[in-house]
Amino acid sequence: MALFPPSVERLIKELAKLPGIGQKSAQRLAFFLLSLPREEAQKLAQAITEVKEKIFYCALCYNLTEIDPCPICSDPARDRHLLCILEKPSDMLSIERGGAYKGLYYILHGLISPLKNRGPETLKLEELLNRLKEGTIQEVILATSMTTEGEHTALYLHQLLKPFQVKVSRIAYGLPMGSSLEYADEITLSKSLEGRREL
Amino acid sequence: MALFPPSVERLIKELAKLPGIGQKSAQRLAFFLLSLPREEAQKLAQAITEVKEKIFYCALCYNLTEIDPCPICSDPARDRHLLCILEKPSDMLSIERGGAYKGLYYILHGLISPLKNRGPETLKLEELLNRLKEGTIQEVILATSMTTEGEHTALYLHQLLKPFQVKVSRIAYGLPMGSSLEYADEITLSKSLEGRREL
Repeated sequence: MALFPPSVERLIKELAKLPGIGQKSAQRLAFFLLSLPREEAQKLAQAITEVKEKIFYCALCYNLTEIDPCPICSDPARDRHLLCILEKPSDMLSIERGGAYKGLYYILHGLISPLKNRGPETLKLEELLNRLKEGTIQEVILATSMTTEGEHTALYLHQLLKPFQVKVSRIAYGLPMGSSLEYADEITLSKSLEGRREL
Repeated sequence: MALFPPSVERLIKELAKLPGIGQKSAQRLAFFLLSLPREEAQKLAQAITEVKEKIFYCALCYNLTEIDPCPICSDPARDRHLLCILEKPSDMLSIERGGAYKGLYYILHGLISPLKNRGPETLKLEELLNRLKEGTIQEVILATSMTTEGEHTALYLHQLLKPFQVKVSRIAYGLPMGSSLEYADEITLSKSLEGRREL
C-alpha cells in the first residue's frame, strides 16, 4: 500500500524533479499546495502552462521573449555597437539591475565543459557570427562567469571572433564591493592588483 | 520595462509563494521549467491540478485521501483500539515508515499556538470526540512534536480526553538513535534518564 494517495505521490515525484528540491522538500511543497485554496494552487499550474505556451527565444539574441524581436533588441535607445555575451537569460537580469549597460545582449544558453561532455556545438553561436558579419557591432564583451567553464568559453569565443574586425573584451576580475582584503582568495587578489586603474 | 516577459514574471511570482522558495530560487526554478520540453513542464502543472481535484480529507481521520474512508481507516488489519494523534498528514508518513505501529491515526491539522493566535478551535477535534464517545478506542497516543506548541497541544488534549474512559499516552522523550551523550542537550538528557526502562 502506498503511503499517500496516487495523485499526491505523482505531485511529489514531479516536484522532486526540480533543481535543488529533494524528496523531503517535494513532500513539504506538495502538502503546502494541498493546503492552499484550489484557485491559489491553480494559479501556479496555469503560470507553468502559460509560460510554456507564450515564451520563445528572440531570433536575434536568444533571450526569452513573448514578442520577436525581444524588447531589448527592438529598443531604439540601446547602443547597437556593443554586444554583451552571456551564458543564460538570468545573467541578463543581473546586468540590467546594475543599469549601467546600454548595449545589446547575446545569450549562449550554455558553456563549454569538456568534463560534462559539452562542446562548442552545444552553444547557440550561429546567429552571433551572422551578426558580426553584418558589421554593426564594434565591441563584443565576454561576460561569462569567472569559473573554469566560463573562462574556457570566453577563451574559445576570443579565438572564434579573431577573424572579425571587432574589439573583444572580458569583464574585469577584482574584489567585490564591500569585501575586505582579509577574506579575498589570492588569485582574485593578484588579478585585482593586475587590473588596477589610475585615479 | 520589466526585465522578463510578463508570463515569466507571473511564474516567478507564483513559485516565490511556495514555502522556502525565495525570489532567487523562484527565478532558478522558472528558468528550469522554461528549459524543459513542454510535455515535461506540463506534467507538473497537471499534477497540481489533479491533486486539487482528487484529494479530500478522510471523514474519520482527516488524513488526505482519494477514497473515503481512507485506506488506513478501512484496513481490517489495523488495530481499531489504538488511535495515534498527529499534527499533520506528513507526520503519518514518518510513523508508517517505522512500520511498527498498527493502530489508526487522527490528524489535527495544526497545533495550539497562543503566539500565532491559534486556539483549540482551529484544530479538527469534533470527529475525535465522536469517535471516543463511540467506545471502540482504548488508547489515545499523543504524538505531536516535542516543541512548545506540540507539548502545549498534548497537554490540552490530555485535559480534554479526561472525561472519556481511555488510556492517554505521550510518545517518549529521549536521545535519538545514533546520537552521543556529548551532544545531547540537558533537558533531553534528563528526560531520557527519567524515562529509563529496565532491561
